[in-house]
Amino acid sequence: MPTYKAPVRDMMFVLDEVIGTDRVLSMPKFSEINKDLVEAVFTEAARFTETVLQPLNQSGDKEGCTWKDQTVTTPKGFKEAYNAFVEGGWPTLTGNPEYGGQGLPNIISMTTEEMICSSNLAFSLYPGLTRGASIMLERHGSKELKDKYLPKMIQGTWAGSMCLTEPHCGTDLGLLRTKAEPQADGTYKLSGTKIFISSGEHDFTENILHFVIARTPEAAPGIKGISLFLVPKFMVKDDGSLGERNSVFCASLEHKMGIKASATCVMNFDGAVGYLVGDLYKGINNMFTMMNTERLGVGMQGLGIAEVAYQNALIYARDRLQGRALTGVKYPDKPADPLMVHPDIRRMLLTMKSLNEGCRMLAVWVSESLDIMEHSEDPVQQQDADDFVQLMTPIIKAFLTDVATDGANLGIQIYGGHGYIQEWGMEQFARDARIAQIYEGTNGVQALDLIGRKMPAHTGRYLRQFFHPVEAYLKAHENNTDMAEFIGPLAKAFGRLQQATVGIATKALGNPDEAGAAATDYLRLFALTALAYLWCRAVEVSSQKIGQGDDEFYEGKIQTARFFMTKILPQSSSLFSQIMSGSKPLMEMPDVRFG
Amino acid sequence: MPTYKAPVRDMMFVLDEVIGTDRVLSMPKFSEINKDLVEAVFTEAARFTETVLQPLNQSGDKEGCTWKDQTVTTPKGFKEAYNAFVEGGWPTLTGNPEYGGQGLPNIISMTTEEMICSSNLAFSLYPGLTRGASIMLERHGSKELKDKYLPKMIQGTWAGSMCLTEPHCGTDLGLLRTKAEPQADGTYKLSGTKIFISSGEHDFTENILHFVIARTPEAAPGIKGISLFLVPKFMVKDDGSLGERNSVFCASLEHKMGIKASATCVMNFDGAVGYLVGDLYKGINNMFTMMNTERLGVGMQGLGIAEVAYQNALIYARDRLQGRALTGVKYPDKPADPLMVHPDIRRMLLTMKSLNEGCRMLAVWVSESLDIMEHSEDPVQQQDADDFVQLMTPIIKAFLTDVATDGANLGIQIYGGHGYIQEWGMEQFARDARIAQIYEGTNGVQALDLIGRKMPAHTGRYLRQFFHPVEAYLKAHENNTDMAEFIGPLAKAFGRLQQATVGIATKALGNPDEAGAAATDYLRLFALTALAYLWCRAVEVSSQKIGQGDDEFYEGKIQTARFFMTKILPQSSSLFSQIMSGSKPLMEMPDVRFG
Repeated sequence: MPTYKAPVRDMMFVLDEVIGTDRVLSMPKFSEINKDLVEAVFTEAARFTETVLQPLNQSGDKEGCTWKDQTVTTPKGFKEAYNAFVEGGWPTLTGNPEYGGQGLPNIISMTTEEMICSSNLAFSLYPGLTRGASIMLERHGSKELKDKYLPKMIQGTWAGSMCLTEPHCGTDLGLLRTKAEPQADGTYKLSGTKIFISSGEHDFTENILHFVIARTPEAAPGIKGISLFLVPKFMVKDDGSLGERNSVFCASLEHKMGIKASATCVMNFDGAVGYLVGDLYKGINNMFTMMNTERLGVGMQGLGIAEVAYQNALIYARDRLQGRALTGVKYPDKPADPLMVHPDIRRMLLTMKSLNEGCRMLAVWVSESLDIMEHSEDPVQQQDADDFVQLMTPIIKAFLTDVATDGANLGIQIYGGHGYIQEWGMEQFARDARIAQIYEGTNGVQALDLIGRKMPAHTGRYLRQFFHPVEAYLKAHENNTDMAEFIGPLAKAFGRLQQATVGIATKALGNPDEAGAAATDYLRLFALTALAYLWCRAVEVSSQKIGQGDDEFYEGKIQTARFFMTKILPQSSSLFSQIMSGSKPLMEMPDVRFG
Repeated sequence: MPTYKAPVRDMMFVLDEVIGTDRVLSMPKFSEINKDLVEAVFTEAARFTETVLQPLNQSGDKEGCTWKDQTVTTPKGFKEAYNAFVEGGWPTLTGNPEYGGQGLPNIISMTTEEMICSSNLAFSLYPGLTRGASIMLERHGSKELKDKYLPKMIQGTWAGSMCLTEPHCGTDLGLLRTKAEPQADGTYKLSGTKIFISSGEHDFTENILHFVIARTPEAAPGIKGISLFLVPKFMVKDDGSLGERNSVFCASLEHKMGIKASATCVMNFDGAVGYLVGDLYKGINNMFTMMNTERLGVGMQGLGIAEVAYQNALIYARDRLQGRALTGVKYPDKPADPLMVHPDIRRMLLTMKSLNEGCRMLAVWVSESLDIMEHSEDPVQQQDADDFVQLMTPIIKAFLTDVATDGANLGIQIYGGHGYIQEWGMEQFARDARIAQIYEGTNGVQALDLIGRKMPAHTGRYLRQFFHPVEAYLKAHENNTDMAEFIGPLAKAFGRLQQATVGIATKALGNPDEAGAAATDYLRLFALTALAYLWCRAVEVSSQKIGQGDDEFYEGKIQTARFFMTKILPQSSSLFSQIMSGSKPLMEMPDVRFG
């Protein structure tokens, strides 16, 4: 049975020592929050996720959700866990205090989100979607809709779902067919079928609010004719009590590779009453508010799984006695040495550790900007933070979920044959992680978003939010001989990233396929460079702390950084070559020759 | 529902045009076999696998094997398929004609094995293990045992299993505890528990012959005290008829990530009668005869899954309409362009295609040496071939199975959300493929075998079987300007491989961890270089064939090779850096700092 222990020490290191909480906590909005409060929230989230959510993870996978007569039952214990989640106030964490939220910063919630995902990824989807939906409603909904629905959504009493995909269209939403017919009373009647709807139906909450994109009769074809509607499962009366059942039903559940305790629904809308959210024809834009939040959330799903896979792999590598060290017996009193003595086992563990901890720094860095973007009173700071979040969202989504699948697979590998057996729980991590590379825009779509939208936006303005601090950092440390073994590789990777950026920008002007061909490699090169930069900062901090107690932790950081620089970052060289070889090797082959 | 069409055209290209059948078919033993016969066998194997085995693949996964009262029932249709398999003579393909085999060369069976694995990986395990067991028995068993058991094993009437792993030991078999007590009549009584036993119990055959490693009471500890025993499920009387049930029973089935139609058994031996196979204390050596055959077989499992994942991904990429080409609408009459127009989709498809076809060339090349090693009358040729097989076995096992997992995951990615849904069948490929990186020695163990045993063996003699032909090839083509774009990258990768080899060999003398630290990266660098060499040969052949008909095929080969050289082979540069950075980044960190 796998276990989970929230890495609170590392989370505080990243937040407090590497990224720093000052910029966020010095804003008036957060004047009552200090470091101790942050740590207290983390400690309580750790307790909740370790003792309430994690014990249901494996049984949830085994049992799955069940569908009968258009209703969905979640696995044993899930509803009770959700009730405890609501009672603990977890859904309200970052919610707007005007509607009952606690108004805490994202630097807290991103990290608690990681814990929730580590402990029970399938569970995390239910509140995750509600949170995204409530953010969207708050941003785009009318006062009337907000007053009616937001407080209960933020409280977690009502849930949200996001209804985009249809059988014939996922990425290309312009093709969608769901219809919204305007009614005399200002409402709409929605008809159509949506698939892959996470939390479309379940037994957690008394009501579910579906945020549905659909086409009104007069609308233009393509994405410009799409509007967003709120379709409640139960109609809500003016006094807030529930009225009639609306005609939206779950027609079936999908049978999936993983996240089996998450209800993935086929939803039929059969003249269901809906309310327009935001302006007509702005459905895609409005939905994207939610999508961006979700994308960062999916990144945290990736990190969550990668972390728990690492923890369990490490436990096994320490416990399992198998073979002897290549350099001679290390534990003569035992029948064999633990797996930890083997270099290749350490390679796998350190790959996981260095990527996970690097990704955690990246995520917290972005969450800092999320808070500044949302709450700073300085418009320049706000714009800079917004630019940075825009730039980094596809990287967080794609890279952290790639790391998750790779890490979960390394975890299986460390367990050997036992990794393949369901009872040990490692294979579930790989199955659960796999979806995160796909939903909320496949990782290929994220790469295109980075290279096709974020890179060229405002003639490269977004890029500056990453390029400038790294340039400044390199300049400040160019003569730092103590850190040369870290700064050198960063400078090399960063040079490659700069050159690749210019190369692609130039070539893509003449041929957009040049951007498309480079996209996935470019996103990875970017992410690895960002991690290299953050590892340099972590080394710098750690070097200063050595000798003040907790040396094992800080020495471990420096050694993990060394592993990253020598065993992971060299990938930047092959990625660079692959990028620079251009689109011809991809595009020249006529379809017929593929086989 | 996924489909499968055996790639007979490509198989014949590899066998007949790239590797060539001459060296094998010119040996006296194969004087009656010609190219037409080879193609006829392939065509019939294609028919059988496409129409009999493939249709059971998905239902077999869904249903799985069931255990009741110590007996195992395979999924619906599997027993009938196995009967048809036996009736078709497939188990006898390469078997020794003295015992009823057809005596066909490995260059045929390796390829038909790929087809079987593509169509139904779980099914392939049953005959695969019997074949390995029969090879071992033929090599090491007494005449009495062989006469009694081999004909029915080769025929497929009786099955084999391989009982190595115990709960506390997999890789480190020296720790095993199963006991074999000698009896007055020369037999042994075996007691103990074995786990992860593929085909340990099933309903395909009337008898199952377990090949079990165990320890006799007086034996030395560790692997030097292990002997090999044949333990039949049913005792066999002198007239060949079945007698009493032996006391070996399946205690339960493992619940696994994939290959659910393969019975993975916990086997209890409770004083079961066994017969010594080969000499006392030579159990590990004898078992390794089977293990090497199995390792090549597992490599073919990898290629099989990689191939079928590619085929289905390609079908979807052609069918699915989603979005428009970045360079403008390509199919204005359709609501959207097919996925094929997107560079990133092509990147994924070409990654699969170039690796799969490269791996097929590698596998056929090794199978050629397998035949020469087994049947050549020239001792020098025989030794050279043996050396080459020794060298390449860990590469085939590890690299082809890595390619399988990566390819199956790319296949899922191309399907987007549908890839995650069981109905579409893509996620099954990833789940099924995953075990191949683990069993018969994890891929980490393969890498250590390559770098720790095969590389230094006889002061590098094995290596020459790869290094010499590549050196000669590069020399012969150094002025070939037509092929410069292929020869150049090969020369670069080969240079890195040579340098890495010397570097590791030198450093490992002083510190064996240097070999262990480099192992996985070195195996991959070796494999990619081998593929680069084979792609050069494929380009050379294809260039000569253009203009003689079938140009699409040959042009496709050249373009696939170009993709490989520019988008895959650059990995050799990062692998080289990682190797050369040595063992310190892996070994310096004390255990406690891992977390």
